[in-house]
Amino acid sequence: MNNLYEKLLEYGKSDYYPFHMPGHKRNVKMDMLPYQIDITEIDGFDNLHEPEEIIAEELEKARELYGTRKSYFTVNGSTCGNLTAICALTVKNEKILVARNTHKSVYNSIYLNELRPVYVFPEFLEEYGISGQIKPEKIEEKLKENPDIKTVVITSPTYEGIVSDIEKIAEIVHDRGGYLIVDEAHGAHFFLSDKINPRLFPESAVKYADIVIQSLHKTLPSFTQTAVIHVCSDRVDIDRVERYLRIFESSSPSYVLMSSIANCYRILETRGCELIREYIDNLNRFYSETRKLKNIQVIEINGRFFDRSKIVISGRKKNIKGSYIYNTLRDKYHLQLEMCSGDYALAMTSVMDTKEGFDRLSQALKEIDAMVCDCDETCKITRVQQRLIEPVIKKKICEVMNLGKEKVELFKAKGKISAEYLYLYPPGIPLLTPGELITKELLEVVELYRKSGLTVHGMADNDKYLYVIE
Amino acid sequence: MNNLYEKLLEYGKSDYYPFHMPGHKRNVKMDMLPYQIDITEIDGFDNLHEPEEIIAEELEKARELYGTRKSYFTVNGSTCGNLTAICALTVKNEKILVARNTHKSVYNSIYLNELRPVYVFPEFLEEYGISGQIKPEKIEEKLKENPDIKTVVITSPTYEGIVSDIEKIAEIVHDRGGYLIVDEAHGAHFFLSDKINPRLFPESAVKYADIVIQSLHKTLPSFTQTAVIHVCSDRVDIDRVERYLRIFESSSPSYVLMSSIANCYRILETRGCELIREYIDNLNRFYSETRKLKNIQVIEINGRFFDRSKIVISGRKKNIKGSYIYNTLRDKYHLQLEMCSGDYALAMTSVMDTKEGFDRLSQALKEIDAMVCDCDETCKITRVQQRLIEPVIKKKICEVMNLGKEKVELFKAKGKISAEYLYLYPPGIPLLTPGELITKELLEVVELYRKSGLTVHGMADNDKYLYVIE
Repeated sequence: MNNLYEKLLEYGKSDYYPFHMPGHKRNVKMDMLPYQIDITEIDGFDNLHEPEEIIAEELEKARELYGTRKSYFTVNGSTCGNLTAICALTVKNEKILVARNTHKSVYNSIYLNELRPVYVFPEFLEEYGISGQIKPEKIEEKLKENPDIKTVVITSPTYEGIVSDIEKIAEIVHDRGGYLIVDEAHGAHFFLSDKINPRLFPESAVKYADIVIQSLHKTLPSFTQTAVIHVCSDRVDIDRVERYLRIFESSSPSYVLMSSIANCYRILETRGCELIREYIDNLNRFYSETRKLKNIQVIEINGRFFDRSKIVISGRKKNIKGSYIYNTLRDKYHLQLEMCSGDYALAMTSVMDTKEGFDRLSQALKEIDAMVCDCDETCKITRVQQRLIEPVIKKKICEVMNLGKEKVELFKAKGKISAEYLYLYPPGIPLLTPGELITKELLEVVELYRKSGLTVHGMADNDKYLYVIE
Repeated sequence: MNNLYEKLLEYGKSDYYPFHMPGHKRNVKMDMLPYQIDITEIDGFDNLHEPEEIIAEELEKARELYGTRKSYFTVNGSTCGNLTAICALTVKNEKILVARNTHKSVYNSIYLNELRPVYVFPEFLEEYGISGQIKPEKIEEKLKENPDIKTVVITSPTYEGIVSDIEKIAEIVHDRGGYLIVDEAHGAHFFLSDKINPRLFPESAVKYADIVIQSLHKTLPSFTQTAVIHVCSDRVDIDRVERYLRIFESSSPSYVLMSSIANCYRILETRGCELIREYIDNLNRFYSETRKLKNIQVIEINGRFFDRSKIVISGRKKNIKGSYIYNTLRDKYHLQLEMCSGDYALAMTSVMDTKEGFDRLSQALKEIDAMVCDCDETCKITRVQQRLIEPVIKKKICEVMNLGKEKVELFKAKGKISAEYLYLYPPGIPLLTPGELITKELLEVVELYRKSGLTVHGMADNDKYLYVIE
């Protein structure tokens, strides 16, 4: 059977003339940009918002692959998935339990549905300087304190590959009749190792949670901005999910993006086993090679709660800046990493990585490892004790949006209510959200972080000013 | 200077190895799908959500081209543009004046921001069977009746190419200190004829309105799902626009879609004059050829309020079904039109159409024109008098979403409150939205329309049932 991409290719080659959108009319010649397969919802090509034919078939394929109740593609990323899931499972003004280290789209959902968040913090892994798991007992504690909470949202895996115990958390949430949403944006590849012993990746949340959101582009061979939303349990009102999906996603969805989703599943279907075996070999060899490093360190956490596809290169042992590792890899070795922060740099890998790529990285790390002894102070970071700040919530995020705001110098803002987000990387947790009080403790922490060379994001004019409520 | 696309191409050919997202790692070989240029926000490639470098340059180019205050690209279509504009210019629970023939994303904005809509109806053009202009005097009347309305939203041009008098409407709205949002999704090409005398297309709303949303893919050579939001006046709070854009759009925007926007402007910049002249020749010849048709008719409205790029092929004179014209063009002539409805079919054209395409269409229409005398009754439509139904609003759309709903037979639903939208094409105006009363008059009209062979969209189970509030 032809998949969506092949069907589009065939149509592009036919003598059918397009008196329909898009306006490029498949009449632009470009090396790379695929005008030939970019169409609109014409006969035979179904409709993402009301799928009945070829798109419905592709969705059914995805549903079977993950074993969910129903799965939906989105061409507006996991952003759209989080907005949809949270709005569908909450009503306005409801309380919600949210892991503080979730994506900004979760905060935007809180804003849109006027929710009252209660936050649960991940552990901080002092040894590695990154955020750890959301512990089931913390979820339980918060739910006991707030018996009116129905919906719980957590991110697993984190950017750095830390996976929470979703099975236990789901049990706790479901015992109280609640819903669990897992933002598994960085874990769409987990299912690939299900049939391999020992399993290389952690278990996906789809088996336990109510709704799971996965980015397809992050760890699978699909285009940026593509994602899938899995409805996993019977408790979810499908109508509400579909209604919000239609709200948050273009009514003219891109066939180029949808093709890339179809091809992603085709690749996994036809070459999945071969790719995953090569990938496992590559990862095993890479981790085994880099275990010998003396100064920098590739983080490896044993057990079933760590996603080894995310390579966290830590300078923590010798207080080497993440940016030093990142810049050296990019400028000297032409290895472009995903990001860096504090004392680590992050390399994302996938089944499409090559042996050559992994070998270049491990070789480069060996050389950097030998070099860093001679690093001068500009490459070093002053380590500070991470301190968790419990927010003091004064107003709902949605209340702040329509209030007047003023710019004040951060260090004169004590006692004011923030109109903005302040973020610290690592661990990628907001220090402050709109509606929260600017406390003495917060200002101390920000000063401490900055002195140690970390960047606090969200301030205006050279990071001196903060917007607060007038 | 390299544009975004060229820069991506160059990067794709370099020896930089991607230890970053997306997971296809530019390592999938396909005829058409451009894995090579699909990246994430790595160094040198800017960030759509905080543009400072190459994306900022592309935006500035667009801003200059249209002469706006500030312009933004969106990779989530005009859907994202409408949601952003309306949420940015209203506060919760506010009244808003909305043309009843706007896109569903406008209704979704009303839902999200809990607005209280007052509707203004377009004229109905009896001669052609399509919706006409929103008259300035109607806007004035509604604003006088509702002095607490600040924001006005209209669609111009319509799907069928009808343009309202934006200059006058803007004057009326601004005289009262209000905001005017124009959904110009179907008019991104208007500026192309600005320098040509006589101007081929109507004037764009960017000169008069406060925010204008244009789909780039509908009438210009850009990919499906790309759009631009123009902030045109100083009255608009830019911060609010940017905040909502970040909410409604993926935090991982597609570089493939962004490249196609960059290339769209490049094409217009380098070949715009030549393309527009050819296009004008093609359109002039087409309209002149088809004026000779006897039974079917290509609608042509003189004056500056009609967009001739949209070719409306009407069977109204002889009561020929739009679907007959549409299906014949597709099946016999391999000309795929945009849509059909009632007694007309719609062909979308753009600067990228070829002389050959236009000639095939006019030739086919001549042949169909000769054939239709022998049409049997299945190709005919019973014409009914269009009746405008003033909605009786019982609940806000946002109130309905969280209420229980039940499925009832449409003709037993009198006196109930709808939980769904009912749409009639043409003229593409909702007959009913959630929260509106199901009246005797409405049921009469629905029955009348159906008997005449028109489809009323929005009902369940073979169009027999409607969801209403319990």
